[in-house]
Amino acid sequence: MSLARPNARFLRRIPIFQIRTYAAPGEGTIPPSKKRYVPTSGTYPLGFKAGTAHVGVKASNTRFDDLALIASESPCSGAAVFTTNKFQAAPVTVSRDMLKRRKGSGIRAIVVNSGCANAVTGKGGIEDALTMGEATDQQFIQNADGEDDGNGSRTIVMSTGVIGQRLPIQKITDKLPHAYFALGADHDHWLAASRAICTTDTFPKLLSRTFTLPSSDTQYRIAGMTKGAGMIHPNMATLLGIICTDAPIAPDPLHTLLSSAITKSFNSISIDGDTSTNDTVALLANGAAGGNTISDATSPDFAAMQATLTDFAIDLAKLVVRDGEGATKFVTIHVTHAKTYEDAKRVASSIARSPLVKTALYGKDANWGRILCATGYAEGVESVVPEETSVSFVPADGSAELKLLVRGEPEQVDERRASEILKEEDLHIKVRLSEKFEEEAVVWTCDFSHEYVTINGDYRT
Amino acid sequence: MSLARPNARFLRRIPIFQIRTYAAPGEGTIPPSKKRYVPTSGTYPLGFKAGTAHVGVKASNTRFDDLALIASESPCSGAAVFTTNKFQAAPVTVSRDMLKRRKGSGIRAIVVNSGCANAVTGKGGIEDALTMGEATDQQFIQNADGEDDGNGSRTIVMSTGVIGQRLPIQKITDKLPHAYFALGADHDHWLAASRAICTTDTFPKLLSRTFTLPSSDTQYRIAGMTKGAGMIHPNMATLLGIICTDAPIAPDPLHTLLSSAITKSFNSISIDGDTSTNDTVALLANGAAGGNTISDATSPDFAAMQATLTDFAIDLAKLVVRDGEGATKFVTIHVTHAKTYEDAKRVASSIARSPLVKTALYGKDANWGRILCATGYAEGVESVVPEETSVSFVPADGSAELKLLVRGEPEQVDERRASEILKEEDLHIKVRLSEKFEEEAVVWTCDFSHEYVTINGDYRT
Repeated sequence: MSLARPNARFLRRIPIFQIRTYAAPGEGTIPPSKKRYVPTSGTYPLGFKAGTAHVGVKASNTRFDDLALIASESPCSGAAVFTTNKFQAAPVTVSRDMLKRRKGSGIRAIVVNSGCANAVTGKGGIEDALTMGEATDQQFIQNADGEDDGNGSRTIVMSTGVIGQRLPIQKITDKLPHAYFALGADHDHWLAASRAICTTDTFPKLLSRTFTLPSSDTQYRIAGMTKGAGMIHPNMATLLGIICTDAPIAPDPLHTLLSSAITKSFNSISIDGDTSTNDTVALLANGAAGGNTISDATSPDFAAMQATLTDFAIDLAKLVVRDGEGATKFVTIHVTHAKTYEDAKRVASSIARSPLVKTALYGKDANWGRILCATGYAEGVESVVPEETSVSFVPADGSAELKLLVRGEPEQVDERRASEILKEEDLHIKVRLSEKFEEEAVVWTCDFSHEYVTINGDYRT
Repeated sequence: MSLARPNARFLRRIPIFQIRTYAAPGEGTIPPSKKRYVPTSGTYPLGFKAGTAHVGVKASNTRFDDLALIASESPCSGAAVFTTNKFQAAPVTVSRDMLKRRKGSGIRAIVVNSGCANAVTGKGGIEDALTMGEATDQQFIQNADGEDDGNGSRTIVMSTGVIGQRLPIQKITDKLPHAYFALGADHDHWLAASRAICTTDTFPKLLSRTFTLPSSDTQYRIAGMTKGAGMIHPNMATLLGIICTDAPIAPDPLHTLLSSAITKSFNSISIDGDTSTNDTVALLANGAAGGNTISDATSPDFAAMQATLTDFAIDLAKLVVRDGEGATKFVTIHVTHAKTYEDAKRVASSIARSPLVKTALYGKDANWGRILCATGYAEGVESVVPEETSVSFVPADGSAELKLLVRGEPEQVDERRASEILKEEDLHIKVRLSEKFEEEAVVWTCDFSHEYVTINGDYRT
């Protein structure tokens, strides 16, 4: 077929298209370049099971599971971190209230639907979210698999999808028994659940690993799944994360562990800087592996658990960036020599959010001017000293840094080497603020491509 | 010519390409759709003249004037507002110091070069900026057109262009006499100057008008020019604005007038949210038209001058948005019923900066979910009450608002009407926060298009 040629230079820049639809979670074929991020096996925490069902929350989804249930065999500790957006979706309100009421203990399950965010749905939406939690609780009670302790729901509710539409709650409750009876502890069960929570994601995001704690030889497991970054697809909302461990952790330290891990992981990634109505990351700990319970924030076990959880959450969060809409680059922004962690993070976030930095990276341009500018306009930062600021690219192959700016003075840049470094999918930008200071922060982001505009400029479908 | 068809749907979305190069200011042909913004005549302030010269600051510019001189025939009041970026270019430092030293009086000229921003150029850059100002002063002295009062330079210096390169200062000082002898008061002189300060702008931005003040029948004139928004083109920096009036205004009220006008004009526009190293808007008032001097901020003349200047600055700033890189839409974001002006502006800016809102508008999508989300994550805002928030489109033709969300409840949207409204170049989004409050703010922005990515993803050239 012949076609007028609008602009040859432009056409050369069109990236190979990612397969990204929102017909249904998991419907798309995983792009070859992303297959390596999908595990084929895992080590899953004892006493946890995952199950899925097909509801068809989105009417066009006639085949693919869009309801996921993650359950602990016994009541466990639970904590969650929620969006700071003032427009909080109904499941956020309902889950927050539930965790508060139960003081983070006696939790049994997390139930998630994709296809509808149950956001901006008023009182009816709150009722739907409550119903979704209670109907999940009923599965356990009806099947003599748990009891009503008179303290209300034991379920964290999450929704992701279109904003402003009511949940088809009857369809969901009708299919909840299917998800319950599908519960299982195998890799396939976990993978299916990680797929069912997806919306425009091009691949399911699932990780698992084992670890030990200083006070015993007990082997523990941690597993987690996450989905799509920021506000994705027209009217789609939500970053969701679910992490489960069989280590024994009391509710209070559990919340502290999660909050701290989130600061350095899910709150240190940026696709487009938009914070959605539904963002939620939850952590369950059921102690099924035994060992000594972490009951306060002062023990060596707590410190080790913090390090393990933070690393795990970072790796999970990075998968979200790997799947940023239209992304062709995975970018690590490392800001060092700041007065405080917050200063370093504000500068790193300012760089990560700059459309000009992101388009320059897409264009494979070692444009330190834009990096410097975004450094200079980061708000509320005290650590920026222009004549002490340095900017480098750190090559992925371990070779020497490519210095772009040293103590405020532009370097003669070896453009050929810059071009080699910028060809890589993984880029690492290092910004040093002042030798007087020692704090640092890392933020992960991706580039802005033509495809980002295409995906997000599409009509709602 | 035949061409493989990467994705027909995508190709349909490629906009008609704007003519935007950075070979030289004014080199590009003005796109037909922008011609109506370029005036063919004007009413320019008495006692001001404009002149230009060709320097070839950028070596590839062999033909087009890239040095502009705006001069008052007599020493006048001057004020300027500068970038808040911590990396301030040398001309910003030098001009700020000069205005401080002279307490905003005895100013003769503004000299501007395009092609090189003189930013991140260290001590040498400061010397160059000083030299550029002093060489301008010398033109007046050498030609017996002014005197050295022993208080140093009388010239505001501005530069725009590539960051991190030194100015070809000798070439500039060599050509300053050309600009001086080219000084003239005709429309063509002003238009030539507005063209010489351009970088990637697709059209010169020049406005002029007449006004009166309450205390007399004297007719006054105000004229101004501006260039390119935000950080434009790889390594290009700067929004510049120059406003001149023949009304008599003392230095102190002049600065107050300018600061206040800038808040509601140049500081209320957003292309990509990036604040550059060189942003400067200057205002000169020489009193050449006579009448009563505005000497404090309490008189009716002051209030009237404020209204005139603010309106004028808004219209000038809007021209910058009209020429936003890759922009296909001119978007007015009007936030009302906020507790404070700052609250309203923070919400409007958050919406204006959201890549998801901007891509939705490019995609002609009445996506109130994204508008709401950006409203909900605006930082430091107290006025957002989800159940009282309303979002509408206000059609340009004066017909009734298209309500998308009313008091937190989604409306049934007439998609056909939405589509009609979104086809227009001019869009007006209205967000009401809470009936309890009465403050409001307006921010102007444009959409994010494929071409934005193309322009900004290009290699530096």
